[in-house]
Amino acid sequence: RVNGDRLWDSLMDMAKIGPGIAGGNNRQTLTDSDAEGRSLFKKWCEEAGLTLGVDKMGTMFATRAGTDPNALPVYVGSHLDTQPTGGKYDGVLGVLGALEVVRTMNDLGIKTKHPVVVTNWTNEEGARFAPAMLASGVFAGVHSLDFAYNRKDPEGNLFGDELKRIGWVGDEEVGARKMHAYFEYHIEQGPILEAENKQIGVVTHCQGLWWLEFTLTGKEAHTGSTPMNMRVNAGLAMSRILEMVQSVAMGEQPGAVGGVGQVIFSPNSRNVLPGKVVFTVDIRSPDKSKLDRMRAKIEAEAPKICDALGVGCSIEAIGHFEPVTFDEKLVTSVRSAAERLGYSHMNIISGAGHDACWAAKVAPATMVMCPCVGGLSHNEAEEISKEWATAGADVLFHAVVETAEI
Amino acid sequence: RVNGDRLWDSLMDMAKIGPGIAGGNNRQTLTDSDAEGRSLFKKWCEEAGLTLGVDKMGTMFATRAGTDPNALPVYVGSHLDTQPTGGKYDGVLGVLGALEVVRTMNDLGIKTKHPVVVTNWTNEEGARFAPAMLASGVFAGVHSLDFAYNRKDPEGNLFGDELKRIGWVGDEEVGARKMHAYFEYHIEQGPILEAENKQIGVVTHCQGLWWLEFTLTGKEAHTGSTPMNMRVNAGLAMSRILEMVQSVAMGEQPGAVGGVGQVIFSPNSRNVLPGKVVFTVDIRSPDKSKLDRMRAKIEAEAPKICDALGVGCSIEAIGHFEPVTFDEKLVTSVRSAAERLGYSHMNIISGAGHDACWAAKVAPATMVMCPCVGGLSHNEAEEISKEWATAGADVLFHAVVETAEI
Ligand SMILES: NC(=O)NCCC(=O)O
Ligand SMILES: NC(=O)NCCC(=O)O
Repeated sequence: RVNGDRLWDSLMDMAKIGPGIAGGNNRQTLTDSDAEGRSLFKKWCEEAGLTLGVDKMGTMFATRAGTDPNALPVYVGSHLDTQPTGGKYDGVLGVLGALEVVRTMNDLGIKTKHPVVVTNWTNEEGARFAPAMLASGVFAGVHSLDFAYNRKDPEGNLFGDELKRIGWVGDEEVGARKMHAYFEYHIEQGPILEAENKQIGVVTHCQGLWWLEFTLTGKEAHTGSTPMNMRVNAGLAMSRILEMVQSVAMGEQPGAVGGVGQVIFSPNSRNVLPGKVVFTVDIRSPDKSKLDRMRAKIEAEAPKICDALGVGCSIEAIGHFEPVTFDEKLVTSVRSAAERLGYSHMNIISGAGHDACWAAKVAPATMVMCPCVGGLSHNEAEEISKEWATAGADVLFHAVVETAEI
Repeated sequence: RVNGDRLWDSLMDMAKIGPGIAGGNNRQTLTDSDAEGRSLFKKWCEEAGLTLGVDKMGTMFATRAGTDPNALPVYVGSHLDTQPTGGKYDGVLGVLGALEVVRTMNDLGIKTKHPVVVTNWTNEEGARFAPAMLASGVFAGVHSLDFAYNRKDPEGNLFGDELKRIGWVGDEEVGARKMHAYFEYHIEQGPILEAENKQIGVVTHCQGLWWLEFTLTGKEAHTGSTPMNMRVNAGLAMSRILEMVQSVAMGEQPGAVGGVGQVIFSPNSRNVLPGKVVFTVDIRSPDKSKLDRMRAKIEAEAPKICDALGVGCSIEAIGHFEPVTFDEKLVTSVRSAAERLGYSHMNIISGAGHDACWAAKVAPATMVMCPCVGGLSHNEAEEISKEWATAGADVLFHAVVETAEI
């Protein structure tokens, strides 16, 4: 079994870096806080005797050597970056959980045939630079390095420039590493495990996603002196599209979600009808046909809504991953570990995207989940118990050691 | 007649200060650009032999002396501040039109019994600091100086601090000046004069306004892993309120408008359902009963919409003025001037709020309007012709001189 106190202490130490405003964290990718978090993690890796490699996307790979020089490593990781108003566990638990696995292996003097590599992927959240899971996407060959370097944050800063600025451009080619297996431990970020009173989620699938960025063009005009019938109201068109997205998602229940997290009015002045409204629709389903049908419906309906108001409508797909089925053998190793350790468990589909979804393209992969209070995540109030954190790390430890072969 | 070329040149010179991004201006109140615009205006006033006074709200009063030491002055003005993406004429035409009136009086050696005071009111737009028409509101006793000084811009800067920072806190008590009459010349900011092919709008009324600031409280949560039936979606509630405001305004046609110019999502991240959405509803009508009925309907419906979604709803009235009826004698002097000068004219109701609306509380007041292309305003593409600008200034000149008595 892992050392739950040590894992918890590390979680709390990391949470001191990039504090939020309400008890959580704002340690967005490639900020000074991210750099500080990386340094602390590097120090911990060195103390655990691991060898650090960094690739050109800034992803950190900390290796515990194996006994067979020809055996490919087992990768175990997640991400240390957070949302602007994020929690202390989303991502962090997976990285520090992986670190706890190797710390426990060290404690017990466990030697494995395959090396074990604790991994911290860059920009999983996609909050500052869309899309999410950017570095693992480049690793899996989904995006080019050039594409990634040219992503822009809301201030117009380039990903490549910011990575250089914080000093974390590594020398490894991205995706050069071959994996024997990839494990990721994460909080559920949803309400199911808690509601079902289960300690462990055995993650069999991850739902697919489309991010559709809408740019609506209206006519900037005075709110007072512009008669109702002369308005070209991009804000009203946005409202109708939000309502339509809601009804499209409701029409595909159960097993689908749709919503909008980001809306930007221009010029965003109280007495000016917006000339431009930009917003991102986020739709997901574990069922590819549902996912694609939702996209098609939204892309068919939105232009009609806009046309009726004279508003221009352009739609760009700025994020996408297909639904993923995780590796059966690894899924079984997670389930067996939970059984063996006496933890209650259930199969679950990941509602959020994870680096594991891209890793699954290039290696056998799976995930372990623990509950979170009220299903709350992407919220500073995100919370888990030390017991939950420990149970998941125990399961991770067993599954990783089994896969890395003693 | 005034010198239209000189007026136009001054407009173009002022437009060089605080240029926008699309041919218009961003010279928001109490910015460095506002300070620069004030300095240029001050220089022009001095060159025209005027005596400058400044009050504690930073409003500038440039006096051309009268012949009777006991006669109250005729005030003529508007504002030099602009929207973030504003035009070159909204407000500016009224200040520089007033300056052109006294320049023409100087050219012709006209002496009047009443002094004439060219006025530049601070923060008419209300874009940076709500509410609009702030300095004239304090002048008319509608707001306290303390209230005004404590208005905050989106970055949290206080009005009082910013006024001090740009060096324009004057020594006059606000509202201490007594007015014989107040005139304001402004572009229509709407489509009516152009559509009716009239050169002059004789402004008989100004419609009333409410600004209702909504703060909706949802539950910040992951867009992917939060099932549809567990969402507390403040963004969806906002959408429904926008649609409801539209239908309330449509239900009061003609003679009413309603819309939303500003929407702020928090945390505004693509994969986070907003925990908070703040937006401002702008409703107006020249008919007080319509205006108040719209407010009542919106305030009754919005909480129901929010309740159905579990969203918290608080509403604060952050801007208000009643419909105004301008002074009959001054309105007649404007109409007669247009007649005398041979300009086509019609009665018009101002769709926008103006400093004249507050001045009307403490003095006889009225306005002169000229058309603007396509009714466009609060848009960098706002445009007028030199001929339009000149015709309005001619009418202003005649009405002011008549009221100031030769
Ligand atoms: N786990 C997580 O929140 N990832 C961000 C990508 C997503 O929105 O699913
Ligand atoms: N004239 C003008 O645009 N004033 C700003 C106040 C308003 O929104 O009416």
